[in-house]
Amino acid sequence: MHAHLERIESPLDVRRLDVCELEELAAEIRSALVQSIGTIGGHIGSNLGFVEATIALHYVFDTPKDQLVFDVSHQCYTHKMLTGRAEGYLDPQCYSKYSGFTNPDESPTYDLFRAGHTSQGVSLACGLAKARDLVGERHNVIAVLGDGSLSGGEAFEGLDNAATVGTNLIVVLNDNEMSIAPNSGGIYENLGALRRTNGSHPNNFFRALGLDYRYVEDGNDLRALIATFREVKDIDHPVVVHIHTRKGKGLAWAEGDPEASHFVQPAASVPPRKGKTYQELTRTVLLDKIQRDPSVIVVNAGAPTGVGLVPEFRRACGSQFFDTGITEQHAAAFCAGLAKGGAKPVFMVMATFAQRAFDQFVQELGLNHSPVTVLVFGSGFYDIDATHAGTLDIVMTGNIPGLTCLAPATREEYLDMLDWSIDQQERPVVIRVPERMVCGGEGVFNGAAPGRWHVAQPGSGIAFLALGGTIELARRAATMLGEQTGVLPTIVEALNYSSFDEPLLDSLLDAHDVVVTLEAGILCGGFGEKVARYFGKTGMRVMCYGGKKEFLDRVPTEEFFKIYHFTAEDIVADIKALGIGAQ
Amino acid sequence: MHAHLERIESPLDVRRLDVCELEELAAEIRSALVQSIGTIGGHIGSNLGFVEATIALHYVFDTPKDQLVFDVSHQCYTHKMLTGRAEGYLDPQCYSKYSGFTNPDESPTYDLFRAGHTSQGVSLACGLAKARDLVGERHNVIAVLGDGSLSGGEAFEGLDNAATVGTNLIVVLNDNEMSIAPNSGGIYENLGALRRTNGSHPNNFFRALGLDYRYVEDGNDLRALIATFREVKDIDHPVVVHIHTRKGKGLAWAEGDPEASHFVQPAASVPPRKGKTYQELTRTVLLDKIQRDPSVIVVNAGAPTGVGLVPEFRRACGSQFFDTGITEQHAAAFCAGLAKGGAKPVFMVMATFAQRAFDQFVQELGLNHSPVTVLVFGSGFYDIDATHAGTLDIVMTGNIPGLTCLAPATREEYLDMLDWSIDQQERPVVIRVPERMVCGGEGVFNGAAPGRWHVAQPGSGIAFLALGGTIELARRAATMLGEQTGVLPTIVEALNYSSFDEPLLDSLLDAHDVVVTLEAGILCGGFGEKVARYFGKTGMRVMCYGGKKEFLDRVPTEEFFKIYHFTAEDIVADIKALGIGAQ
Repeated sequence: MHAHLERIESPLDVRRLDVCELEELAAEIRSALVQSIGTIGGHIGSNLGFVEATIALHYVFDTPKDQLVFDVSHQCYTHKMLTGRAEGYLDPQCYSKYSGFTNPDESPTYDLFRAGHTSQGVSLACGLAKARDLVGERHNVIAVLGDGSLSGGEAFEGLDNAATVGTNLIVVLNDNEMSIAPNSGGIYENLGALRRTNGSHPNNFFRALGLDYRYVEDGNDLRALIATFREVKDIDHPVVVHIHTRKGKGLAWAEGDPEASHFVQPAASVPPRKGKTYQELTRTVLLDKIQRDPSVIVVNAGAPTGVGLVPEFRRACGSQFFDTGITEQHAAAFCAGLAKGGAKPVFMVMATFAQRAFDQFVQELGLNHSPVTVLVFGSGFYDIDATHAGTLDIVMTGNIPGLTCLAPATREEYLDMLDWSIDQQERPVVIRVPERMVCGGEGVFNGAAPGRWHVAQPGSGIAFLALGGTIELARRAATMLGEQTGVLPTIVEALNYSSFDEPLLDSLLDAHDVVVTLEAGILCGGFGEKVARYFGKTGMRVMCYGGKKEFLDRVPTEEFFKIYHFTAEDIVADIKALGIGAQ
Repeated sequence: MHAHLERIESPLDVRRLDVCELEELAAEIRSALVQSIGTIGGHIGSNLGFVEATIALHYVFDTPKDQLVFDVSHQCYTHKMLTGRAEGYLDPQCYSKYSGFTNPDESPTYDLFRAGHTSQGVSLACGLAKARDLVGERHNVIAVLGDGSLSGGEAFEGLDNAATVGTNLIVVLNDNEMSIAPNSGGIYENLGALRRTNGSHPNNFFRALGLDYRYVEDGNDLRALIATFREVKDIDHPVVVHIHTRKGKGLAWAEGDPEASHFVQPAASVPPRKGKTYQELTRTVLLDKIQRDPSVIVVNAGAPTGVGLVPEFRRACGSQFFDTGITEQHAAAFCAGLAKGGAKPVFMVMATFAQRAFDQFVQELGLNHSPVTVLVFGSGFYDIDATHAGTLDIVMTGNIPGLTCLAPATREEYLDMLDWSIDQQERPVVIRVPERMVCGGEGVFNGAAPGRWHVAQPGSGIAFLALGGTIELARRAATMLGEQTGVLPTIVEALNYSSFDEPLLDSLLDAHDVVVTLEAGILCGGFGEKVARYFGKTGMRVMCYGGKKEFLDRVPTEEFFKIYHFTAEDIVADIKALGIGAQ
């Protein structure tokens, strides 16, 4: 069934096939993709569209001497199959063996970089090309870029610089007319014009940047791709090869619904969790706000899926939803402009992607006191590729002057925070949206004093300071500690990680020996360290629980908790080992 | 001498003049600029070139109802003169009254945003335009953008989005053919082609993005500017007005040396400090490296001045210097590519601008273990506009997994770190280059153990842990404490702020009651907090000295030190007030 594919150990084996066999290989790869990704989940749409182009690249170019860089690298599945990792798509036992992104740990020869965020590919390739020229080597450098990545400023910076690198550099633009969601931005009109004119439109974004240009209308036609790649091989200047492919090619439902096919979830997933997600809750609240107030506007930067911005919701918002494309920098500044103009912007963004807007959070939000609501999704410890980890958001936003950063633990708190934040006009507010299912509780947030924390249980000896959803862990640990030692620990819910509730902290000094902080993020630069500094002079013992400063790659959530002593058992054992506070 | 200018209290007064009087006004403004900026320093070149355009904007448009946004906002001096702040340029007593950037604290009506970094202007304007449409207002939104800003990805994101905003939005592109240094990037070829063809070149970057376009060849001709601005006033779609101006116009030396005229220092400055700067030292070392090793390459992102990359040095580096334009994101990823390709990149960047590359520091440097050397200049506490503060770099880089962050205090340490970092192949290294003059000392850095700190003075009772150059303050405080109490404090120089020297910290536990940390950056998320966490369980008292999480605007350096108790006197008083450790 996969006669060719099973025999491919490296691109050398691809180069031994004739074009008819390559076409058979493409069919085999497509079948393997549908089977494997259908089972374990992944970026099915773009990979189905990029099968032929990947074969043609490895067929024409002398990889690994010729260097291939995948932007985002979510389109690398065929590349993995052709570079010794076909088992990951053929053998169900190996389906989870390889990650969904290029990874030098898997193949230092063929995967030059770990990538997962968008728009860096051309920049990386510029570096490879310039290094090649400096050290006097000769080979091709090829960057593979999806059309969705073009909206990102870094891709523009890369293309703009590619022209000045001046030597061999080939950018393969895989244009499947889609980003994660439909593309947004003026450049997509130009891509459309180029497609409609078979690449001959006089106004050409790439040529305007000084880049040479080729167009391949059928980007799933192996013969056409091979001919064009042969034409640009060993070229002595930068060139863009614009190929028009079909997202989801060969899989009927995926071709029909390219947004749903961008990333599919595993088929045999864990049973669906009961209850409502915070994404659903957010949609309900925002739609209500939008219907009552024409100045409320939801902004997203080209990544709607992870934040729950489903197509129906976007449609229901009408002109009060704006997708800026994959442009977190612009989106944050856009929100500052919206706020200044009297609108009430709500920027919904994944923790990992928010990293691209750090400077705008500092300058356009913090320094300008812009009343923007930023809803951060996907933060905390969970099983995900290291490129998409959401463990740096507390560090990133919590230390920026001028930002008010909130971490709700319950439905009531979240709703109160959202309500207050959207309507207030004084400051930028970041809300760390819980990743677990919605749970109810007290409504203890008070917009009149957004820096106040809440004593959930008064006690003595030990005080747990729990940020956001870690309150549940604090409760479990406190109960266990009580059962084992007889103490009744204090439990404080820290609703805000950008400032201290100083009166509350001071009030702990009298009757407590130990403060235990809990946060679902890395400890370095985080919430617990601030508490440790606050108590530094006092003699109060402080124990901080959270993550190490490290990249963890696809570690099961439960493993995270074990590694970081993020369980009630571990915390209680640690406290008892300290030998104090538990008289 | 400034008859018109002295009578202008608001743009209304500009609109009362006829064109001949406006030309006289331009001459007066130019004279005031040369006089005032020549005395107190500032961005003279671009402002001299933008006099007529600013007059024409306020003449034609109905400011403040029509909203004007300055990208970077360093070209706003004429705008300030026409909006009630002429005294700041006419009266030597008031020369320092207004900042060099737009500032709502000075004029909430006319200065909508604080801006200082590059390329955010169009994004802010998109937000204003969209807000206007949402709340049903009608007025013009105008963004002023310099050609240098076009290299920044955020400007591309803004322009790409401007097309989709779809309603009135006017982008005035002030093209003076220069960034801070000569422009770099393919787009500048296109601007050149447009200039050469009076805006009629068929390939047009802006039109490719779906934007309407106008060109004004003489951007210092008031009549031409007024005519064009009238033409686009109240336009119902986004348009770029490309005006060609002369940087330094009207000042002979500035026209002749546009890079030197980008920013001039105050004439009656403080007396030059004695000795060599770390910028000079860096140039000497790098030039030597470059001459001996063709794979060493210096990378800068369009801001050479603040990091000491003077034109002669850039020329001497030849192809081993690369200016990427104002593109920190690209520059960081470019360096990752260079390193992977076998080159040895040294990225020289200002602390404040490095903020734009946060995500690339995480992904392309940290996650990819890219052996890139990042030299961070302009960090710490000193008198500067809040937009350019360099106090967040420790927070930003020190908490990213995979980065090794070093803080030298002396010439010898810096040289050893630089030497080691450039030649090692394992990891990204950030070096916080001292801002003070070069001083000598011991060579205590050891590349074989880059996480080790150094005990500069063994003692007991109190231990000072000083990051980088704060060791001098630690020595003064230790001496003073010794004189007043008889204790001999331990002094530790922390050479690395991305990790702990755990054996050293543990060794302090026996004979010390108090640890005092010192760092020239904000405390939140910084170095001292990590020490506080480390000792949290132990009962060791920890006092952290550094900056508050706040934006301080043009605060004299000495004031900083007072506010933050960053003096030996204050520190000793605080320790004594604690009543421990000084038996």
